Parts: sequence; structure tokens; C-alpha cells
Amino acid sequence: MAEVEFSKDSLDRLQKQIDFIVEVDKLKQIYRQTYITDGTRKENDAEHSWHLALMVFLLAEHTFEQKLDILHTMKMVLIHDIVEIDAGDTYCYDDIAALDKEERERKAAARIFNLLPADQAKEVWELWEEFEEVRTPEARFAAALDRLQPLLLNYASAGISWQEHEVKRCQCLKRNNHIEDSSKVLWDYAVRVLDDAVKKGYLAD
Amino acid sequence: MAEVEFSKDSLDRLQKQIDFIVEVDKLKQIYRQTYITDGTRKENDAEHSWHLALMVFLLAEHTFEQKLDILHTMKMVLIHDIVEIDAGDTYCYDDIAALDKEERERKAAARIFNLLPADQAKEVWELWEEFEEVRTPEARFAAALDRLQPLLLNYASAGISWQEHEVKRCQCLKRNNHIEDSSKVLWDYAVRVLDDAVKKGYLAD
Repeated sequence: MAEVEFSKDSLDRLQKQIDFIVEVDKLKQIYRQTYITDGTRKENDAEHSWHLALMVFLLAEHTFEQKLDILHTMKMVLIHDIVEIDAGDTYCYDDIAALDKEERERKAAARIFNLLPADQAKEVWELWEEFEEVRTPEARFAAALDRLQPLLLNYASAGISWQEHEVKRCQCLKRNNHIEDSSKVLWDYAVRVLDDAVKKGYLAD
Repeated sequence: MAEVEFSKDSLDRLQKQIDFIVEVDKLKQIYRQTYITDGTRKENDAEHSWHLALMVFLLAEHTFEQKLDILHTMKMVLIHDIVEIDAGDTYCYDDIAALDKEERERKAAARIFNLLPADQAKEVWELWEEFEEVRTPEARFAAALDRLQPLLLNYASAGISWQEHEVKRCQCLKRNNHIEDSSKVLWDYAVRVLDDAVKKGYLAD
């Protein structure tokens, strides 16, 4: 296959992949509302995506979905926030920003994913849409972790982000109850964390 | 399986997994010598690990290894730097720090990985050792990407880190030539990037 490897098309393909890989470095500058556990600064999307991928690896046994495709779920969480490079992070309790979120994100997906060779652009786009639609077992599990992870960080950082945004326990429960669509165990755990956060004064009742 | 899910052992298992997941959040505060592409700050290990996992996904076609296990490689890069939470990042051109690197990292692995339930602690430990020993196709590909990624970032940030450490082209070639053990295409690409970096004055000849 050496000849193919050195063909102009092959180099062109690699260059497109590298262009994408370098472009998405910008995800490291997209900051979320959640603080890292030591409370010193906000978390960015690249760190968040790494954390989710690790959680897919370690917590997959807790979903009740049958035959979860772990690699597929991992790919999904690795790319799920890339559109925020252009569209920005929309805070989950910000109803006004949510209005044009979909349009902003689709435009971002079109620009960024199309840096890749066509087949990979299609694969990444489909992974992203699958994540957004939350209809498959993998997307439901990815969504559950995407809710659980900031909850763990908010608890560990003594609720700084909850307090900054004056979030209450009932909002947290409503926002995060999709965890239950993928895992009863993780949802019960999340509820216990929120209850304890209220007890400790991290979260308003 | 509901009874098992709610047993004390099962909750204890989940708590251990969560303890590990929260502990490794500290990887977001372990800074490397490489700058992110816009040159404004150094990259941390969590971001770097996310970037590598994405590269496993997108560049796997370029290794000449037969039947590469992509999920296995992805798990490896997600956990490969976790020991640096205790052991710190050892700069690749620092020969003195390299002397006790292994001892520091093994001690860190023992503390951090053992937060997990025993079976997962074993799995993560084996993945980490496999990465360190660079003997399997997956470890060789992970190592290749671990070299290529900072090279791409150094080039994109106009060589700030190369200049800070007065690194020369010949050192870069020697340090990174392991890329060739997994992929001729990626190695040829890396050499072209280094040549261009010299031309542009980012890297000393």
C-alpha cells in the first residue's frame, strides 16, 4: 500500500485531517459555567470531553441499555461540544440563549466538520446529530454522563457555580432527570449528591 | 438485576469509581511545556489526552499495524498521563528529571489507580504499563500520536515552546522518530512540518 500512502490524494486527505485536529484545539478556550474541583477556575470543553470519555470507559456497566457500543459512545462524547468553538457554550439554565442555539450550532458544524475528508465529516456530523437527538442507547448514556459530570464537579467545588447562578435543587432535579433514561443507579446517586449538597449549604433547597 | 444494582457492594463499587473520577479532575491542573495553538497559555494533561483520543479516532487509518484495536488505544491515551497528578510532567528534554521518573510514576499509579474497584484498577494499571513499554501495536500508535500532537501545537503556536527550551531540529527528529515505528505517513508528515518550522524560523536548525 506504499504507493497509495504517498499519492497526492492521500496527502491531501491527511492534510484535511490535520487541519481539523489543529482547528479543534480552540475547544480548549471555550469555558463552561462549571468550575474544576479545586474551584480555582472554570472548566473548558476539551477537559470536559476528556472527563466524559473516561466516564464512558469506567461507568458503562451502570446503564441498563443492552449491548452499548462503548467505542461509539466515546467518539460521540469526544466530538459533542466541538460546535461550541463557533457557537459558544450555552448555559443550560439560559432560556434566551437557547432560542437560537440550534441554528448557531448547525452553522458551526457545517464549517468545522467539513474541514475533514467527506467520509469523516459525515461520520462526525452523524455522531453529533445522534448526540443532540438523544434517541439511541449510546446517545442516552452520553447525555446521562454529560449531566452527571458537572454535578460531580459542582459538588466537589462546594457549589460555586450553583450559587453564582442561584440554581435551586428543584431546577437541578428537573435539568438532570434524563440521567434516569439511561441508568437508575447513576440517577439515584445523583439525587443523593444533590440532597447532600443542600444539607451542606452548597445548593439552595 | 435491580436487586444487585441496589446492593451495598454495588453502591460501594460506584462510590470507588466516582472517587477516582473526581480525583483525576486534578489532571486539568497539570501543565505541559507545549502551548495551545493560539500561544496564550500552556496546555494541560486533560486537554492533551482529549486531543490524543480524537486523533486515535481520526488518524487510525494511517498506522501500518494490522487490526489495531481502536477502543483499547483510546482507553490508553485517556489514562496515560494520570500518574502525573502526583509525579508531575517531566519535560521530554529534561535528562535529570528523567532519572527518578519511573519511581515517582509507579508510586502515583499505586495511589491513584487503586481508588478504583480492584478489577478496574488492574485494567487501568495494565493499560498504563502497556503504554509505557511501547511493545504492542496499540501502544506504538498511542506513542506516535503522543509525539505528533505537541509537534503540531508547537508549529501552530510559531514554536514558542521550542524557543523557550532552545530545542533544535536534530533533537526534535531524534525525540520524535518513534512515530515511524507505527506510521510512515505520519512520520513523513512530521518531518515536513519540522523542515517548514526551520524555514519559518520557529525552530533552530
